[in-house]
Amino acid sequence: MTKTKSTVPLRLIEETSDYWRVVFDYPPFNIVDATIFEGLQELLGRMEASPSLRVVVFESANPDFYLSHFDLTGKIGNIMSAVGASGLPILMDTFVRLTKSPVVSIAKIRGCVRGVSSEFVLACDMRFASRENTRLGQPEVGVGLHPGGGGTERLPHLVGRGRALEIVLGANDFDGDTAERYGYVNRAVPDAELDSFVDALARRIASFDRRAIAAAKHLVNQVSLPSADRLLDAFTSFGTALTWPEAQQRIQALLERGLQREDDFEKRWPEMLGTLLET
Amino acid sequence: MTKTKSTVPLRLIEETSDYWRVVFDYPPFNIVDATIFEGLQELLGRMEASPSLRVVVFESANPDFYLSHFDLTGKIGNIMSAVGASGLPILMDTFVRLTKSPVVSIAKIRGCVRGVSSEFVLACDMRFASRENTRLGQPEVGVGLHPGGGGTERLPHLVGRGRALEIVLGANDFDGDTAERYGYVNRAVPDAELDSFVDALARRIASFDRRAIAAAKHLVNQVSLPSADRLLDAFTSFGTALTWPEAQQRIQALLERGLQREDDFEKRWPEMLGTLLET
Amino acid sequence: MTKTKSTVPLRLIEETSDYWRVVFDYPPFNIVDATIFEGLQELLGRMEASPSLRVVVFESANPDFYLSHFDLTGKIGNIMSAVGASGLPILMDTFVRLTKSPVVSIAKIRGCVRGVSSEFVLACDMRFASRENTRLGQPEVGVGLHPGGGGTERLPHLVGRGRALEIVLGANDFDGDTAERYGYVNRAVPDAELDSFVDALARRIASFDRRAIAAAKHLVNQVSLPSADRLLDAFTSFGTALTWPEAQQRIQALLERGLQREDDFEKRWPEMLGTLLET
Repeated sequence: MTKTKSTVPLRLIEETSDYWRVVFDYPPFNIVDATIFEGLQELLGRMEASPSLRVVVFESANPDFYLSHFDLTGKIGNIMSAVGASGLPILMDTFVRLTKSPVVSIAKIRGCVRGVSSEFVLACDMRFASRENTRLGQPEVGVGLHPGGGGTERLPHLVGRGRALEIVLGANDFDGDTAERYGYVNRAVPDAELDSFVDALARRIASFDRRAIAAAKHLVNQVSLPSADRLLDAFTSFGTALTWPEAQQRIQALLERGLQREDDFEKRWPEMLGTLLET
Repeated sequence: MTKTKSTVPLRLIEETSDYWRVVFDYPPFNIVDATIFEGLQELLGRMEASPSLRVVVFESANPDFYLSHFDLTGKIGNIMSAVGASGLPILMDTFVRLTKSPVVSIAKIRGCVRGVSSEFVLACDMRFASRENTRLGQPEVGVGLHPGGGGTERLPHLVGRGRALEIVLGANDFDGDTAERYGYVNRAVPDAELDSFVDALARRIASFDRRAIAAAKHLVNQVSLPSADRLLDAFTSFGTALTWPEAQQRIQALLERGLQREDDFEKRWPEMLGTLLET
Repeated sequence: MTKTKSTVPLRLIEETSDYWRVVFDYPPFNIVDATIFEGLQELLGRMEASPSLRVVVFESANPDFYLSHFDLTGKIGNIMSAVGASGLPILMDTFVRLTKSPVVSIAKIRGCVRGVSSEFVLACDMRFASRENTRLGQPEVGVGLHPGGGGTERLPHLVGRGRALEIVLGANDFDGDTAERYGYVNRAVPDAELDSFVDALARRIASFDRRAIAAAKHLVNQVSLPSADRLLDAFTSFGTALTWPEAQQRIQALLERGLQREDDFEKRWPEMLGTLLET
């Protein structure tokens, strides 16, 4: 959110005082580390201090990677331990404040969106994905872990228990069409129309009264958000899972094969999880 | 429900003692005002006094308008204040009694169905919509208000939080195909087949034992109906929203542009909500 | 599970110690009676005693009948009265233990799957159905009964209240495509690809760590399983419904027409329920 490129994981474009776009731009792969969460925390502070803001669209500067996944080399700072404004750990605080904000959040998805990044878009109010260019999933179980940032709590309500278990236990990518059919995203939109579709919807919402938007979203939230207790259970269990030797072995295997280093592997790694430990 | 056309917003056709059709016929646009609710309250009384009745199909005499929307000129009588048989305000009482009735309710949808009318079909047990001729939505937020008759409580369970927020905050129309894809209606059926499809289903259900139907519906209700507390929260908040100056300004703008007067505007007004206050 | 064909309703194929297939093989129609539940109870005991097992696929030796339906000639032994390991009646105990097992269960569906058999696949973690060869439904209401083994509790969460009521009150068959569109199954897969699709998914899951699988499934279960109270309500009510004279009359009519005897009638009987008592 600052001016210096090297420390700018999120670029803020104020289309109007009612409508902002936030562009993830954190080369090479938009990996989700402490820096991304710092940017999101700063953004949430700005959103909360902007009384005329109605809607924020989240997108990526890199069409291959929306946000790729949780940093597995350890650059996660204090996001698992320090608490944010809600009193919850920063990782959870970020997602929970986004869901409860009177401002509407829209994820405009192109490219790879896995694990904690899937949980970010699940914490957005709506998700629109490129029909041709989306790889969305929760591959944690294939890495010896499990989702810890709300995926296991939000997916069953969106897609039902059977599809939630397929997504979480199958640990593979979902393309735009399948994600739409399952209800994982609102719609898969042809890539050439995605920008104009989302922009029109955002401008439309931005023209409405903030008080009406906030009241309506609050009412929907009352019957659709998971409880903080359930979210904390998953988060705490995830913290433990990170210490499991099986998980560490799988993480090492992925890093050795090219995760977070090689473009091609970074795009396709969930496919390989079923044979990760074979020689 | 009486014989005089001028006071007959609902026509009752008793196909058999097991199976009734109710036809909304309240020119010019089937606008939902106190008269419609009087008709529905009288109908509910008749349904509750008919021990052999199994199923009621709700349809419209006007293919362009199923029920259009809440009357915005003030002709709502006491439906927000007086209470019905359940002890809830008449607007809510009507919808809640329909959901809990041992009689099965089926909405056969053609034409425009917006706001409180969407909430009426959401209170029906099933919804079948014309594939070619359906304009279904919750445009309240675009009028400076929010849904108050169950839309914000029933939609998340049917379509998930993301799509519910798109429907409610986007405040636009959904056609038959999109409504089916989202789960907003059970099915979109080709218009030429809609009557026979719904009639066959209704006659089939009418042939079953009332006790079995009632027990099965009761069990499904136990795990799928929103609580009265949640419904009352939304209803009360809606009553307050009607007094907001922003809402009054938008309602005035709509009435000046032709709402409840001009056929073409009445069909297309949600499209215009994004530019309603522009000169 | 034993070697003698006459007492072997379930054949167990241990593909590996991680991945089992269970084949229903109980001619002529795989009717669900006390013998099937004995086999499932024995299987659950084996699953619980197999610490390296990750995933079980359930399929049928007969492509026309997965499991057909509850035995209506009375051969249900003590599955409604005696309790299983969970303290719940055996019928419920079987389904509840399957849902809570750390082992992943996948239903690979071909042929007829009705009533208690639908409730079996709803208790599995995932359901994949043959696109061309699936007849899935809850026809109990058309037999004067209602679902009692979890159908009324699990369907609303998967498909929403409107579609759940259509399935339960319409009491008819759903083909693979409609079942997928409704969310009743995860996916309808072309029959020629079904075996390889499910096998690849099962082997993939079998390669993951059991601890990660168990933790992830447990978290999803916390927000997606119906309560034991709700399941018991339906089960108890079903026990009562079996004594209703209307139900007994419909059951007799079905048995006289050929149920559990004639192949063609066994395949198509739900179609006839709307005219069952006509002469």
